[in-house]
Amino acid sequence: MLADAVELVEYARDHGLWVELLGEDGSRADIDFLSRLARAGFDAGADRVCYCDTVGHATPERTVEVVSTLAECGPTSTHTHDDLGLGVTNALASVAAGADLVHATVNGVGERAGNVALEEVAIALAHGYGVETVDTTLLYDLARTVADATGIALAPNKAVVGENAFTHESGIHTDGTLKDEAMYEPYPPETVGRERRLALGKHAGRAGVEAALEEHDVDVTADELAAITDRVTDLGEDKRVTDADVLALAESVQGRERERRVELLDLTAASGSGTPTASVRLRINGDERTASGTGSGPVDAAVGAVREALGPGGDATLDSYHVDAITGGTDAVVTVEVEMSRDAQSVSVAASDADITRASVEAMVEALDRLHAA
Amino acid sequence: MLADAVELVEYARDHGLWVELLGEDGSRADIDFLSRLARAGFDAGADRVCYCDTVGHATPERTVEVVSTLAECGPTSTHTHDDLGLGVTNALASVAAGADLVHATVNGVGERAGNVALEEVAIALAHGYGVETVDTTLLYDLARTVADATGIALAPNKAVVGENAFTHESGIHTDGTLKDEAMYEPYPPETVGRERRLALGKHAGRAGVEAALEEHDVDVTADELAAITDRVTDLGEDKRVTDADVLALAESVQGRERERRVELLDLTAASGSGTPTASVRLRINGDERTASGTGSGPVDAAVGAVREALGPGGDATLDSYHVDAITGGTDAVVTVEVEMSRDAQSVSVAASDADITRASVEAMVEALDRLHAA
Repeated sequence: MLADAVELVEYARDHGLWVELLGEDGSRADIDFLSRLARAGFDAGADRVCYCDTVGHATPERTVEVVSTLAECGPTSTHTHDDLGLGVTNALASVAAGADLVHATVNGVGERAGNVALEEVAIALAHGYGVETVDTTLLYDLARTVADATGIALAPNKAVVGENAFTHESGIHTDGTLKDEAMYEPYPPETVGRERRLALGKHAGRAGVEAALEEHDVDVTADELAAITDRVTDLGEDKRVTDADVLALAESVQGRERERRVELLDLTAASGSGTPTASVRLRINGDERTASGTGSGPVDAAVGAVREALGPGGDATLDSYHVDAITGGTDAVVTVEVEMSRDAQSVSVAASDADITRASVEAMVEALDRLHAA
Repeated sequence: MLADAVELVEYARDHGLWVELLGEDGSRADIDFLSRLARAGFDAGADRVCYCDTVGHATPERTVEVVSTLAECGPTSTHTHDDLGLGVTNALASVAAGADLVHATVNGVGERAGNVALEEVAIALAHGYGVETVDTTLLYDLARTVADATGIALAPNKAVVGENAFTHESGIHTDGTLKDEAMYEPYPPETVGRERRLALGKHAGRAGVEAALEEHDVDVTADELAAITDRVTDLGEDKRVTDADVLALAESVQGRERERRVELLDLTAASGSGTPTASVRLRINGDERTASGTGSGPVDAAVGAVREALGPGGDATLDSYHVDAITGGTDAVVTVEVEMSRDAQSVSVAASDADITRASVEAMVEALDRLHAA
């Protein structure tokens, strides 16, 4: 095997290539053998050798031992996997032990639990050790692009690039963040090209609920705020709390009758072998209006029908449309969450139903109603 | 603040409570102050103090420094977050520095990028250091239960519990795994209550394709296998390759005409304000059959109609039904993946369409056809 490696390195060098010699599964190999392989490779003209923790097996201690041995022979890179959750650690340990290059993938995509994530290594080096590598302000856009292109979704709690990495939900955290943005963040979201978000859920506190109500120009007394916050935390036990939920709870607590501007009276959607079509009957400012639409599927057709019924009043923008992964049987309940905006106002609404068309239209009509009431 | 802490500890002790004293954001605090807080807490009767890396800010070096200082004062626990991707590292570093208890959450659920994941700490300790904590064989079931209950999905490449953590796709990895199961895994999947999976994609090799074909009793020559593998890797550039895809590619390469037993001729689904309903027209072994069904939504109704049309022949089981998270507009293409089985045979099929009902029925009919041909 040593002779083969030497022959291949020489062949590549003779053909003008830059050569990095990798000993796959190096973390489970005999360290003396790896060291002989590295020396033979460098003697044959290799530019660099690589420490490969191919199966994500190594501890940081073992990584330091192997990488420092290899780095004595010449320039060394590191290739770590995350099977034990130690991908970033082992990459950093390798750099500390003398590696001058880190193999990584965006979002940690790769075999099994994946290679070490580029964005995590870059941020750990920058924040923890003041070592600059890539332009970190592009990391979030890059991560989204790769997630879309590969179809490999990011967990909401993924470090650096997950949807919630800069979202504060607990009351104490939200209150602290409203007072001092740095209180509950190791580094500002702008570092990775992102924005801070406050969310409401079962750990919500008064400061966060008040901030959400203020955004929708709803004034409340201290007692009302306490009561609304209680209702928000109750609701948060079961689901994510949206803008529409908070507004509805405020109305209920304040005893205000909600004046609906846009209301769904009837929905029919048909699809299959022909062109998907849908009709809706809405009550808009007291008048009933019926309209139909076609689309690429029943949801799209129904959304078209709603827009048609609203006419020029339907100029709100659908900023995001999200359906969680549906797993289980075909009768699973689907939750649709939309964010819509009109002028400076935006609102988030979620609706759940076993029928994705119905959930989508209900969420959208609720959002339109909130935007038209504003 | 010291006086307040002492008073609270004494109050809790006087009321018979076991007391753990937490200095929130301890990783950004002055180490001398933390040490004074810990000593005052222990003097007041605290049973343990906790090192809190509340914002996931710390490096392992800093963690060792602080935890070893606290551990000199008395029993110390550790509370780490994953903002820098160092949650597991800092938990392990804390244990090495003298912490006797680790705060963790299942799947790493928590504020922002989350607390350190229980399953990762348990496996890193067990595999890397021979330290047993929890019964690891229950970790996967636990992770799935928590993901379902919280609605916080697991990334496929999440360490230990992600769907792909024991999936091998690249040709070299699949070939190696077929020869020796341990070749590309740090520890066997059974350790965490899971099974190994081989998947086909753009890095597929002949051994993996041959294994997939053998499962469906398809024999091929070496030349055919090479040609099918080429086609699999091409297809894998754009999508996940299912059993149905491999079988179709084999038929194409071998010039076999596929004899369809179950074919979808027509589908109509309607839903909205009333009971969702659907009708299908199928050709089954040459005979046309029409049937209708109702369900909780149009997809469920259509699946009911397909089962009705098949009659006793429709006894295949829908083992899994999965729709990826849908993000973007209401016209987004939806990919539905089903796994169905009948007797000892099972088959996976994916279908994509802007209409979720259509994609679902197409995937299911294709799966039924494959199972009936077997």
